[in-house]
Formats: sequence, C-alpha cells, structure tokens
Amino acid sequence: MKATVMYGAGDVRIENVPDARIIEPTDALVVVTRAAICGSDLWPYKGMPSSEVGRRMGHEFIGLVEAVGADVRKIKVGDLVAAPFAWSDGTCIYCQEGLHTSCLHGGFWGGTKLDGGQGEAVRVPQADGTLYPLPVGRDHALMPSLLTLTDVMATGHHAAITAKVGPGKTVAVVGGGAVGLCGVIAAKRLGAEQIILLDRHPDRIELAKEFGATDIVSERGEEAVARVRELTKGLGVQSVLECVGYAESTHTALSIARPGGAVGRVGVPQDEVMPAINTFFSNITIAGGPAPARAYIAELLPDVLEGRIHPGRVFDWVGRLDGVPEGYRAMNDRRAIKALIEF
Amino acid sequence: MKATVMYGAGDVRIENVPDARIIEPTDALVVVTRAAICGSDLWPYKGMPSSEVGRRMGHEFIGLVEAVGADVRKIKVGDLVAAPFAWSDGTCIYCQEGLHTSCLHGGFWGGTKLDGGQGEAVRVPQADGTLYPLPVGRDHALMPSLLTLTDVMATGHHAAITAKVGPGKTVAVVGGGAVGLCGVIAAKRLGAEQIILLDRHPDRIELAKEFGATDIVSERGEEAVARVRELTKGLGVQSVLECVGYAESTHTALSIARPGGAVGRVGVPQDEVMPAINTFFSNITIAGGPAPARAYIAELLPDVLEGRIHPGRVFDWVGRLDGVPEGYRAMNDRRAIKALIEF
Repeated sequence: MKATVMYGAGDVRIENVPDARIIEPTDALVVVTRAAICGSDLWPYKGMPSSEVGRRMGHEFIGLVEAVGADVRKIKVGDLVAAPFAWSDGTCIYCQEGLHTSCLHGGFWGGTKLDGGQGEAVRVPQADGTLYPLPVGRDHALMPSLLTLTDVMATGHHAAITAKVGPGKTVAVVGGGAVGLCGVIAAKRLGAEQIILLDRHPDRIELAKEFGATDIVSERGEEAVARVRELTKGLGVQSVLECVGYAESTHTALSIARPGGAVGRVGVPQDEVMPAINTFFSNITIAGGPAPARAYIAELLPDVLEGRIHPGRVFDWVGRLDGVPEGYRAMNDRRAIKALIEF
Repeated sequence: MKATVMYGAGDVRIENVPDARIIEPTDALVVVTRAAICGSDLWPYKGMPSSEVGRRMGHEFIGLVEAVGADVRKIKVGDLVAAPFAWSDGTCIYCQEGLHTSCLHGGFWGGTKLDGGQGEAVRVPQADGTLYPLPVGRDHALMPSLLTLTDVMATGHHAAITAKVGPGKTVAVVGGGAVGLCGVIAAKRLGAEQIILLDRHPDRIELAKEFGATDIVSERGEEAVARVRELTKGLGVQSVLECVGYAESTHTALSIARPGGAVGRVGVPQDEVMPAINTFFSNITIAGGPAPARAYIAELLPDVLEGRIHPGRVFDWVGRLDGVPEGYRAMNDRRAIKALIEF
C-alpha cells in the first residue's frame, strides 16, 4: 500500500510500505477515506533531523473498517469510523475519566512502528476503545467537518473547556491556525460574549470573524497585551486559548489573562519553562494539554450533523495522497490553513 | 502605640510608632486582640536587605473596632472583627467574583505606608469590605482557630479548592508548615480519601496525622516522587497542595500529580519559572495563588464554631507583643510551627 513517510525537514515522500494488517486480536484494519495534515506535522517538517528509517505520518483520519481482530466486539466490518489522534483502550482509569490521551494502554499514530493516517490503510490498535462509528456514508457532504472531530475541533474545544469558557465570558484565542479557528467556534458554542483573535493573516481573520470572533488583535508581544487590555476595560480576559505553543505566544497568553482567569494550552509547547510568579499573584489557572478527542466526539457530533458548527471550513486545500508533499509545502508556506486528503 | 518593625534579615524590633487613626471615611480603627506570625514573614526575616526606614509587619489579626469613618455602614464600634491578610472593597468586579486578593481598590497590610497586624492597633482601609464580624467574645476559647481564618486555614482551603480536592480523591500536601497542616484539614473536610503529607519534621507529622493525613513521605526530590507513586498504584495523586513555594517543592508537586490532576499553589513562589512541557502532556492543571480569605470565612466559620475543624492547633508558641522577636526566632529555627500573639 502507499503511505506518507517523512525522512527529515522538508522531506516528505509517498512510498510503497508493507500492507496494514491485523496483528493483535483487539486490532481493526481501516481503509482510509479522508485524512488531514496537521499544524503539529509541521514541527518535524521544519526541524526533523535526517533519518534513513523515516517516520510514518498522519493522525487525523476517517475510514471504512475492512477487518477486525477476534476480540473486537463493538466495531464491525463495514463501519465508517473516525479515529481520534490518540488510540486508547476505553477502559483504563484515565479513559473512564475521559482523558483518553493518557490511556495506560494507548498511544499515538505513525512514527516507526505504527501506520499513520496519511496512507491508504491503518492497523488500529484497541479498536473498540479508539474508533467512533459515524452514522453517515463515506462521501457525505459534511466529511470535512467530521474529520475535524479527530483532532482540531476537539482540540479547540479542549482549549475552551480548560480555559473555563462559559456564557457571557471574555475570551482571547492566541493563534488563528486551524486549531485557533476551531477554538473560536468552541468559544462561541459555549456562550462567550467577547472573542478576541490574536492573529495577523487576513484569510484566517476573515474566517474567524465568520466563526464568531468579535475583535482582532494583530499586534504582537507587549503591544498585543496592551491592545487586549484596551478591549477589556483594562482587565484582560477571563479565558485564554493558547493555540500555538511558542514561548512568545505562551507568554502573551499568560499576560492577557485577567486575575482569576484561566489559560487553556493546546499548542504543543516548544519551550521547557513558563513564568511561575506573575500567574501566581493573579490566581491564573494554567491548564490544557493533548485533547481527549475520543471523549469529545459524542458531544460535538450532533452540532456538526445538524449544521450548528462548520469546522470543516478550516480546510482550504484539498488533494489526493500523491499530493501530500505539496499539502505540506502549502501549509508550511502559509498558502493553506489546513490540507484535506481524499482517497 | 507599639508595633513590630523589621529593619533587615533577622532584625525585628518592637517600637513606638504613631498611633493608628482614621484617615479615610471608609476606614475603621481596630485595637488588636490577637495576631500571628506567618511563614511568609520568614521570607524577609531570612533575606530582607537592611533598611533605615523599616517595615511594619503582620497581616493576620483579630481585634475590636474602636472607631469608624463617616462612610462605614456595616462595621460598628465594638464589633470583634477578623481581618483577612488582604484588604478589599467588597464591591469591585474581582470581589464580586470572590477574588478579594485582586481587589481593584485593595492591598496588603504593613510595609512602609500601612499599619501591620503585629501591633497594638491598625487603621483598616475599606472597612466594610475587609472586616468580618465574629459572633463571639474577645477571649473566646476558639480564638486561635478563628485567627487562622485570616490566613493559614483560608490558604490551605484555597490550595485544596484550586487543586480540585473532592470526595474520594487522592491528595498530596507538599510541606507541613501551618499552611500545609491546614491543607490537610481542608482536604479531609472536602472528602479526600487518601492524604499524603510530604514533610520530615516529627511535630508536624504528628499533627498532620491527627488532622487526617493517611500517609507520610519524608524523602525528598526524586525519591519523594517515587514514594508517592508507590503509595498510589504507580499513578500519582489527583490533587497536589503546594504549600512551600521553593523551586524544588514546586517541581516535586508537579511531578507527583497524575495525568488530569491539579496542583493548587499557595506557597509564594521563590523562583521565576516552572516546567511547561511535562505538565502539558499530562493535562495537569496548575492553579492557586494568594487565597481570597475574605471569601472563605463565611464557609469555614461554622466548622470552627461547631468544633468540626481545629486549625488553631497549628499554634504551638504563644507570647505577648514584646515577645514577637523571639516568636520569629522560634519559627525560623523550626522550634515552633506558628506563633500566636496575645494582647
């Protein structure tokens, strides 16, 4: 079968790899129908050291179940399923608490040992715990929005939940990439009154406004902090969604939270430390992490199916598997917000 | 009148100072009946640069209202009142949200401009918002426990609340000083099932056990982390109360929280940064800060008055105002957990 393999920074190839197949009795074999390229795929695309082995890519996909192992009970051959960006058993103490990304028997797609979503098929470990059957056909018009439930929409929602967004609250979203845009959707959905997007790219800003952003701050650093304060009676916001992960964006996020506020971090941190003192004296809560997408799909799915939210609009680039390398380039060059792969 | 003035590390004096008096119409004049020395008073006691001006000390006190300004409506002459460690107007946006330590028109006792609690009388700004009338006489037997509501019991409670302690949860309390001991009380009161105290001082450990600690960890650093994991099926705890403030104790606190857990910080941070990455991947919440004691008194007072909690037992040293310098020495030498001053 064909799949995406990354060999180093900027070096993404579509290659023939061994066919995905059932290995464990809890596995399912899924033939991919849609996949995506994630902003987090750009971290290795920017900085991965050259490797002869290569790394299988992709952690957002929807597909048809072609086979299941002997111990799989819930997932059936023929199901159309969404695969969250982490696989999980659905039964451990963390899965029971809804924190599937910390599953004691789970893990993440791709790398050197597992299939990735940017390929023709995937062996899915812990199929019963991982996969979420979708009640639609494989080429349903809402497929782009459904695909976002595997990562970016769930991640934006997680940022909003951990930032304690609620009715009437003031919110800032740091970063208008696909996750930040989904964060705007999530904040609006949870009843936020003011939603300030911090970003400077016109295409993202336009979409954010359509999703519910009430204010745009295109300044950076201390100027951005000052501008957010101006927009919030000098106070800062109650909830901040940190959707980037750089030290600078994290610093901005912590600086624009008002006393008693909360910062939900979902951008993968690229720096090892963060300020300890300023957040202490203001009683600011710092929360977030990898989103338990598996836990959120049930909550978000009706809003997608009934047309209340349209997160699939973050996809502004569509291609086939052999176009994946160009999809990476388009996202890395900021020509595209997010790339959708059709099979 | 006489009051405590600190002139530098180890240099605490009882001196004659100008009599406290009403200045603003929102002030009250309070004659102090009980005060305390706080663990946080030891930070300047250990490291304050020499000063010719000196710094008035003390932020935990109870007293009798001797006079009120023209605009004071709720507080009456003759009231016995508890003064939280921060003064606040009770009406601003943060006070309304219960975060009195971020009051837009509030502040902290002592220093170079205000009276401190370790003195014969105090001018109390924003008297209506700040003071909490107590329904007992000035020498009631519960006075030590009532005094803890001005800071340490409220602070231990804040650590527990921000660490999301609840029924059946596993909890660790880092540091067994007066705040940590009150943290044990708070965790027990909120229904924690397992309460692990990290401390190595026999007197504190004994009291912690009486307050409800189920396990003691006297190791430090990585050994402490390993021991907490042993005690929690390898997982770590759901709630951590950080009651010290050193970089090392904060690191330990962040390391023993299990995925999805929360760390409530109430020890004043002595370091400017904390780790960003490990807490991210485990979805650990970092919260806490200066406790809004004013908001918590109403909730905790019935438990003190009806004898369900006995936080006053943290006082193991009692003296008069002229004994305050010896009280500092006793606490600094770890001969005393906490010093009570009677007037």
